[in-house]
Amino acid sequence: MSEINTDNFFGQGEDNTAYAKYFVGQSYLNILNTEGVFIANVTFEPGCRNNWHIHQASEGGGQILLCTSGCGWYQEWEKPARALKPGDVVHIPADVKHWHGATKDGWFSHLSVEIPGEDKSNEWLEPVSDEDYGSLD
Amino acid sequence: MSEINTDNFFGQGEDNTAYAKYFVGQSYLNILNTEGVFIANVTFEPGCRNNWHIHQASEGGGQILLCTSGCGWYQEWEKPARALKPGDVVHIPADVKHWHGATKDGWFSHLSVEIPGEDKSNEWLEPVSDEDYGSLD
Repeated sequence: MSEINTDNFFGQGEDNTAYAKYFVGQSYLNILNTEGVFIANVTFEPGCRNNWHIHQASEGGGQILLCTSGCGWYQEWEKPARALKPGDVVHIPADVKHWHGATKDGWFSHLSVEIPGEDKSNEWLEPVSDEDYGSLD
Repeated sequence: MSEINTDNFFGQGEDNTAYAKYFVGQSYLNILNTEGVFIANVTFEPGCRNNWHIHQASEGGGQILLCTSGCGWYQEWEKPARALKPGDVVHIPADVKHWHGATKDGWFSHLSVEIPGEDKSNEWLEPVSDEDYGSLD
């Protein structure tokens, strides 16, 4: 089932079935740490991206992406998309609508570090349209 | 002054002068995120290691190492040293005496993620002796 992305040294892990309904394309999740701060390695196959979403919190919260393999995109609502490569770091504040994912032609992996906070929840919104995604290069 | 470790894609950053007195050998610090969770890329030249130390906290605290480049060691007091390579993850609980650093012959880099907590402080202790460090292979 799962292709192997050999370049991805934090591990591809399992099919990300729990969140598949919030993604276009196949993603994979390798959970690395659950004590104190949740950290996982997230891998996107070419063309895969998550839907627009918001990390809500009444205090703290949000997420940090640490890019480890391949090439991808991060975009906040009404802003231009930012191209990502290994070594890039994205601080996603709580309450900001955004998406992230692979490029059309390449695999992409980032570590995801969840910032602790109060009253945290994720609000999942509409997919990134093929038209908007397809216009990125 | 600083040699460049070209393999180290999260960036070597600056000479780690603030903590130099707690290290044997030269280390480097590239701070990646300060909001919510402190994350830095720490690079050790060959032979470099930090002193035995303890991340103290009354609640939470401790540190997660995410190894990104080279090869290194992690050791807890009265336990055997653990060899580290890219992709390895170490959860260092609060209040545990430990050290980490490079191997004798190779550079080593890890991301350091500080786990939030209450009443946090670092207790720096004795250096890892040349005899103990020299016996590792």
